Amino acid sequence: MTESETPAAPSLDDPAYRAAVVDLLGVLAYGELSAFARLAADAALAPTISDEAELAAMAVAEHRHFVRLRDRLAELGADPDEAMTPFIASIDGFHESTAPNDWLEGLMKAYVGDGVSADFYREVARWLDPESQALVNDVMADTGHSAFVVAAVRKAIAEDPRVAGRLALWGRRLVGEMLSQAQRVAADRDALSNLLVGGISGTSMPGFDLAEIGRMFTRLTEAHTRRMQALGLSA
Amino acid sequence: MTESETPAAPSLDDPAYRAAVVDLLGVLAYGELSAFARLAADAALAPTISDEAELAAMAVAEHRHFVRLRDRLAELGADPDEAMTPFIASIDGFHESTAPNDWLEGLMKAYVGDGVSADFYREVARWLDPESQALVNDVMADTGHSAFVVAAVRKAIAEDPRVAGRLALWGRRLVGEMLSQAQRVAADRDALSNLLVGGISGTSMPGFDLAEIGRMFTRLTEAHTRRMQALGLSA
Repeated sequence: MTESETPAAPSLDDPAYRAAVVDLLGVLAYGELSAFARLAADAALAPTISDEAELAAMAVAEHRHFVRLRDRLAELGADPDEAMTPFIASIDGFHESTAPNDWLEGLMKAYVGDGVSADFYREVARWLDPESQALVNDVMADTGHSAFVVAAVRKAIAEDPRVAGRLALWGRRLVGEMLSQAQRVAADRDALSNLLVGGISGTSMPGFDLAEIGRMFTRLTEAHTRRMQALGLSA
Repeated sequence: MTESETPAAPSLDDPAYRAAVVDLLGVLAYGELSAFARLAADAALAPTISDEAELAAMAVAEHRHFVRLRDRLAELGADPDEAMTPFIASIDGFHESTAPNDWLEGLMKAYVGDGVSADFYREVARWLDPESQALVNDVMADTGHSAFVVAAVRKAIAEDPRVAGRLALWGRRLVGEMLSQAQRVAADRDALSNLLVGGISGTSMPGFDLAEIGRMFTRLTEAHTRRMQALGLSA
């Protein structure tokens, strides 16, 4: 490549890049489908019918995202089930190790889980072709439900300040479990890891170098801390 | 009333009729919200991701119905939570006594439960004011998911004919539990029962007389038998 040549933008015609995008949409799709199932189940813990309906509406929003991701996978010629299958174990593992014991833990899980994963996937989206980028940003946009969670958790803490300590611990546990499952995915899925670290060769996609990964974690941690503070909790 | 006078059509301005409609929309709304929760939970029993997604889509359709009923209750000036509360015990009781043991039982429950209750509420809708009638018929319309259930159950029976006997028993159990919970609701809710039996006085709404109730049960039973036959099962 001479200096005057511009490297190609990441293109879905490149099989390595395409495989990475299919992996990414697969993990996102299964994540949304199982978030739907968990939120719907946690709705049963709600103290009132309106609270139950509110969590159910959050679940429905996740299902809408799932449908868009699944349809996009099919559009790309991938089998959506096959694309999702590699991520079942780690995502189910996350949910099994973080089954909420009560309504507040369920709310926190929805809020922290949605927040951290949205931040992470939006970081990743920066390296994608414009169409994939728009889809990821779209399905990761806040559906407006976090205001409900913030109000409910703050009210519970106001009524019983001892709740704060328990929920702060729970928030740290949630982030820890997310990180350990993310590491599992990164170790298993070469295409996806290559997308994140070092980009795909032959394209202009630089991916994250190690310094950039460090900065990304700093940004994710700061955003998480702000969300916990919005609840009145220490991160 | 002279012979030339026509009795008034059922009107939401009549407090007795309005109370009956609020009861009816309340039981329907809570029924849909809990159908959402149960279907979403049963989706976890699915053998494949596409099956899980299909049951999740059925759950989402129930939630959409719930939202319409809840919004209509609010429009009528009723508190949706209050309107639903009297029906929590019987509907939760139904779900607790019919928790599916496996994927096929969950599918059957969705199919039989949706079918019988849609038939019943459409019978009731005949006596309502046009707007309430349209809403009930609309939320009770088949969302097109029953074809999926019929195909899946028939396939399971073809693979293992012994499944048929177990599922036929399960179908009878589901109908029995629905009837016993419906009786509980009828015994508890005067406004609703008056709507169904004998109509609301001073209006043209005749409701069901005893002979008509008999005929309605015959129609419901026949429709249930046809649905079970579509699955390859005896009712």
